[in-house]
Amino acid sequence: MKKLFFLMILCLAGTVNSQEDAEQMDKIYKTALTEGKAYDWLNHLSNQIGGRLSGSVQAQQAVDYTKAELESLGLDKVWLQPVMVPKWVRGTPEFAYFETAPGQSTNVSVCALGGSVATPVGGLKAELVEVNGIEDLKSLGREKIEGKIVFYNRPMDPTVISTFESYSGCVDQRYSGAAEAAKFGAVGVLVRSMSLKLDDHPHTGSMSYGDTPVADRIPAAAISTNGAELLSTTIKLNPKTRFYLRQNCKQFDDVESYNVIGEITGSQFPNEIMIVGGHLDSWDLGDGSHDDGAGCVQSMDVLRLLKKTGYKPKRTIRVVLFMNEENGLRGGNKYAEVAKNKKENHVFALESDAGGFTPRGFSFDCSEANLERVQEWKKLFEPYLIHMFVKGYSGADIGPLKNQDMVLAGLRPDSQRYFDHHHAETDTFEHVNKRELELGAASMASLIYLFDKYGIIPNNKIKG
Amino acid sequence: MKKLFFLMILCLAGTVNSQEDAEQMDKIYKTALTEGKAYDWLNHLSNQIGGRLSGSVQAQQAVDYTKAELESLGLDKVWLQPVMVPKWVRGTPEFAYFETAPGQSTNVSVCALGGSVATPVGGLKAELVEVNGIEDLKSLGREKIEGKIVFYNRPMDPTVISTFESYSGCVDQRYSGAAEAAKFGAVGVLVRSMSLKLDDHPHTGSMSYGDTPVADRIPAAAISTNGAELLSTTIKLNPKTRFYLRQNCKQFDDVESYNVIGEITGSQFPNEIMIVGGHLDSWDLGDGSHDDGAGCVQSMDVLRLLKKTGYKPKRTIRVVLFMNEENGLRGGNKYAEVAKNKKENHVFALESDAGGFTPRGFSFDCSEANLERVQEWKKLFEPYLIHMFVKGYSGADIGPLKNQDMVLAGLRPDSQRYFDHHHAETDTFEHVNKRELELGAASMASLIYLFDKYGIIPNNKIKG
Repeated sequence: MKKLFFLMILCLAGTVNSQEDAEQMDKIYKTALTEGKAYDWLNHLSNQIGGRLSGSVQAQQAVDYTKAELESLGLDKVWLQPVMVPKWVRGTPEFAYFETAPGQSTNVSVCALGGSVATPVGGLKAELVEVNGIEDLKSLGREKIEGKIVFYNRPMDPTVISTFESYSGCVDQRYSGAAEAAKFGAVGVLVRSMSLKLDDHPHTGSMSYGDTPVADRIPAAAISTNGAELLSTTIKLNPKTRFYLRQNCKQFDDVESYNVIGEITGSQFPNEIMIVGGHLDSWDLGDGSHDDGAGCVQSMDVLRLLKKTGYKPKRTIRVVLFMNEENGLRGGNKYAEVAKNKKENHVFALESDAGGFTPRGFSFDCSEANLERVQEWKKLFEPYLIHMFVKGYSGADIGPLKNQDMVLAGLRPDSQRYFDHHHAETDTFEHVNKRELELGAASMASLIYLFDKYGIIPNNKIKG
Repeated sequence: MKKLFFLMILCLAGTVNSQEDAEQMDKIYKTALTEGKAYDWLNHLSNQIGGRLSGSVQAQQAVDYTKAELESLGLDKVWLQPVMVPKWVRGTPEFAYFETAPGQSTNVSVCALGGSVATPVGGLKAELVEVNGIEDLKSLGREKIEGKIVFYNRPMDPTVISTFESYSGCVDQRYSGAAEAAKFGAVGVLVRSMSLKLDDHPHTGSMSYGDTPVADRIPAAAISTNGAELLSTTIKLNPKTRFYLRQNCKQFDDVESYNVIGEITGSQFPNEIMIVGGHLDSWDLGDGSHDDGAGCVQSMDVLRLLKKTGYKPKRTIRVVLFMNEENGLRGGNKYAEVAKNKKENHVFALESDAGGFTPRGFSFDCSEANLERVQEWKKLFEPYLIHMFVKGYSGADIGPLKNQDMVLAGLRPDSQRYFDHHHAETDTFEHVNKRELELGAASMASLIYLFDKYGIIPNNKIKG
């Protein structure tokens, strides 16, 4: 029965030719490892441009640079897709200390969360109330919170093997912590950095005030993991410890920016569109090498590798460098909106937004039939030590495109070091290994090649 | 048939209880990730002691330190096993430049290969002959080589996915290059560093003069990959380029050192011995964190993790920290010799000597029956993203123990970054990630647990 089903798939999709596929993949990997461009591009994005927060000069430089580089590849089309993005600016460096008695203070490393309001010009000083999460606020009640700074200190769970899963279990403190604490009269929030490493680097990231009225919004900052540990110990010894925070970040009006798009038009089915992408914006503290310079340059190299190895796609293959994943997802939403208005038929989307580390496999958000198809390709990836082909989350930017027929996929690199760097000043070029980055690009190009060659199984074909 | 065979194995080995195994492994991984000691031990070995070349003060400090730490674990036995080791000393820093015309010189980064003789006190200056490998010497002949420095410049092949395989394809130049070049009258050899990364750090490593008479031995040094590229280009432009090398390394008489051994005596089969180990010595340029501080502290933590999770081994489990893997393998040979003399029955040996990177799996040097057994355990490792269970090389130190019944195994971490650091001054503590190291230790402890619980299938049981 299963065999019959698989034969049906073969008939729908053309015959699998493993030998030819193995040879094409061999060409892709060899080209990536000897003539890859991803690392050079990332060097420029990271070291010549730097952090690319939406609305910044650097973000615009990155748009200009990647557009010019894509134009140099001889693609069939390269264009910019306008999109309005939020513009939040950090301002002068934040400053913070805690004080156990007047004159007895200790400086700690903090940074404003993205989207936070500033403190009063002279800073903010208040006692702290440490909590293990948003759920603690209610039991403490307004009485114990009002006038204080809420210190969210639930660490990422080190026992979870996937660090992304561990991150998911914590990030509500950062994203909604301020809005929730404000309801109980807190004057500010301090959030333990989302990192499994103990060090002195605070990690920023997006936060939202939800429907909190503007007048009630309170400043939110991240504290380094070492700082959080020290502060927690100090509060236990001295519950009257006061915390001083000064930050002068500011939200400006939205500004125009762009998704950067390049295309190889399909030779047989030009209206079936497959996209591969990452997000061009980053946070401002590091240079955004892993998040997500890596995904951008890998995606650019996918089209280049296919061309360079002489492969002519049947379907239209686009690289999309999305703007504003970090604090708005405006680029991803705009791309999906335009696609819908133009009635474009997107059949496949692949995102790389989990760092430029050694690729371990892919996760797929798609029908069972397509997932079974993918499992049949596992053997082709084995020589490259790619083992993981699982159902799961694909990527933020491609999410808005989702429909029941298409296949969404995400590159899954090794995740152990990702949150050491994520959104911190340590997310820099020297922490990306050239070969690991290139192996990711080659794996992505190989998956695109296979889906282009054998096509997607639409849901109605399966039901019929 | 295969089922029947598997049932037979089960009968031989006791029933597999997956639920119990999954729970024990869960305990092991959780303990490693929250209460692991490997990273702290490595911090001491790397930052308080440093590079631990055989016969050095640091090697002795490492022996004393690890013995004391093992004693603190409450094992049944801890002892030192004496072994005579070679003592080679680098001396003052090497110095090298190339000269395209008198007075026009460019300094390059070099280091003596381990075991090399010194240059004359005033250094050595000669023209170069660049070759792609030892096999080129014959076709060039004495005429073109005599009086020159042979420059071995075959790079590691970047298209090979396993960097160890790529290393194997190059290392003959380093190991035998001097002995071979001396036969053609060369006065010295320069070897491109065994690294896939282009940088300025030379990588040392062992070399042998084979049966070259002492008087004919010529100095051998490694040049950084950047230096090798520059030198190669320069020679092409100016074949009369001369190279200057000065190094004053020296071989001393052998000195006494030790393997450090700790043991949990088996409760049911104390005479069936299982060992887990790495090598305590390292090269002198970095602090030997990946090669092989990582393997030592992981092996130490294996015994600690088993105790900490309440597991009482049926068989005797020993941690062995071998001395002198890098330039002599005396520790590995001594351990096997003593085991043979004492008629000890070693049934299993596991080595970690491929860096403290994210574990990907294990390679096994054993019978097909035992390899099949291991495949049955794959599912247990899947939650920890350990996928690779292959036949292959285990480790240098445990190799001398080999017999037809026993199982030899090697931890296989991700290999992409290993040779960036291997034998160079960049093999330092900050390049080891705590979680990656701990996941390796937990994977090793889990494999030991399974082999202890279910036993090894001796060859005669299969044949019978």
